[in-house]
Amino acid sequence: MSDSSTSRVLIKRVSADDIKEADDMLAVEEPLEIRLQFGAGSNTETKSISVTMRTPGHDRELAVGFLFTEGIIKDRDQISGFPEAKGALRDNVVVVALGDEVVFDMGKLERHFYTSSSCGVCGKASIEAVRTVGEAEDYPFEGISLQYEAFYRLPELLNKQQEVFQSTGGLHASALFDLNNNLLAIREDVGRHNALDKLIGTAVLEGNVPLDKNILLLSGRASFELIQKAAAAGIKIVAAVGAPSSLAVQLANEFNITLIGFLRNERYNIYSGMHRVIP
Amino acid sequence: MSDSSTSRVLIKRVSADDIKEADDMLAVEEPLEIRLQFGAGSNTETKSISVTMRTPGHDRELAVGFLFTEGIIKDRDQISGFPEAKGALRDNVVVVALGDEVVFDMGKLERHFYTSSSCGVCGKASIEAVRTVGEAEDYPFEGISLQYEAFYRLPELLNKQQEVFQSTGGLHASALFDLNNNLLAIREDVGRHNALDKLIGTAVLEGNVPLDKNILLLSGRASFELIQKAAAAGIKIVAAVGAPSSLAVQLANEFNITLIGFLRNERYNIYSGMHRVIP
Repeated sequence: MSDSSTSRVLIKRVSADDIKEADDMLAVEEPLEIRLQFGAGSNTETKSISVTMRTPGHDRELAVGFLFTEGIIKDRDQISGFPEAKGALRDNVVVVALGDEVVFDMGKLERHFYTSSSCGVCGKASIEAVRTVGEAEDYPFEGISLQYEAFYRLPELLNKQQEVFQSTGGLHASALFDLNNNLLAIREDVGRHNALDKLIGTAVLEGNVPLDKNILLLSGRASFELIQKAAAAGIKIVAAVGAPSSLAVQLANEFNITLIGFLRNERYNIYSGMHRVIP
Repeated sequence: MSDSSTSRVLIKRVSADDIKEADDMLAVEEPLEIRLQFGAGSNTETKSISVTMRTPGHDRELAVGFLFTEGIIKDRDQISGFPEAKGALRDNVVVVALGDEVVFDMGKLERHFYTSSSCGVCGKASIEAVRTVGEAEDYPFEGISLQYEAFYRLPELLNKQQEVFQSTGGLHASALFDLNNNLLAIREDVGRHNALDKLIGTAVLEGNVPLDKNILLLSGRASFELIQKAAAAGIKIVAAVGAPSSLAVQLANEFNITLIGFLRNERYNIYSGMHRVIP
């Protein structure tokens, strides 16, 4: 991670024995505005799509992951580039330009949701719409099975890599493994949805979606929104260090995702898709 | 908490010694739609303002806390009631009716943000707008000082009360204490912003805002958004069990809030407003 993802402050450290001034490292949290540029020639338009609080770093991947998991773009070929934004705040703006040929209906987008990667459901017209998961159901599914032991080492492998978390104690991580416990990518952010968007955005830009031969490891809890994003990327195995919510389990069942929770100290619970985990 | 905030599922529990089927409790996560009813007589209108993923329970308080911390309502006197929604999904809808005399400009609201309590910044027109904190700056400030030891017991007092968390491992909590370590209220939710909205909404409905003689305890991390909500409610002392983000510390400094982080095992760090904590 770059230096821009941590920030140094002077604090007072209090304990029963001692009170002293000390340097401390914080995880940086700053707003990122995602803009979409679409249309061709003199009809080119740029619209602000979302403002999310994120940890700087991998901003383009975050924007791409957000647009992909919201069903706005289908693959990297629809992106023609990332034109630079102007103005004092340009470091906190990502512009994603769609290719001339991409048909984009802003009105339809506004009807489905107005903004925000923060919840993934913001402004969606109705409660039913929350369940919309883009094209996720179209992914073909190849049978995978894993042995019980295949999950034990994942949190340890994540911890070794989670640099910013170690210095600040303040970041969520999403990590992608292959089926042999090889760590392929890790992304960190103050927002768990952003960490996952960055991870999926990286895969989209590398042309690696669907991620149906991978394990997604979440450093914290598994919420509905994270399972929704995983489903959109074709992920079939999700392991979380923390607890899942009820709706996360329901959605995992609907999308035939194997969902593991409380993965720590060589223990875990399997909440759905149990057929993929074998002795 | 009511039974609707937990849900029972059948899982497989895996450890190195043993694999067995077991019952498990999950924190329930369901969408809540917040609707605003405004205008008088035949000009009455109802608009959907936000859909957020929340744990059922204290839904009206959540809606009120959201509307208050977003600056849409100023106090409980502006609320004329909570008309029942119709339809199959009515348990996941809260309608907040404004009094006839309340002037409400939907266009202005749409310019400032479109929806969502999930991030508190969704759709806000620009990055600068993220810093908008309603009327927070108008609260008078009375000097408070606390001894170092005054914070040590708070996490333990919270844990004793955090029932759903104990059964599911899956909930964030926000708790309000007076300056003598008396727990006044606690609210839990799968979303940390919702837990705080529920807590603040309760105070608004009881006529207890501003909360400038209280300590707010957060069970997890302190993000920008949570400090923004605390500031909107006039809270001057925030203690978090987890880490703060850089922007949370900046905002706490701007609003003269005492921000404490990593409060556990009789230790903590003070990040801002150090003058209020004395030997």
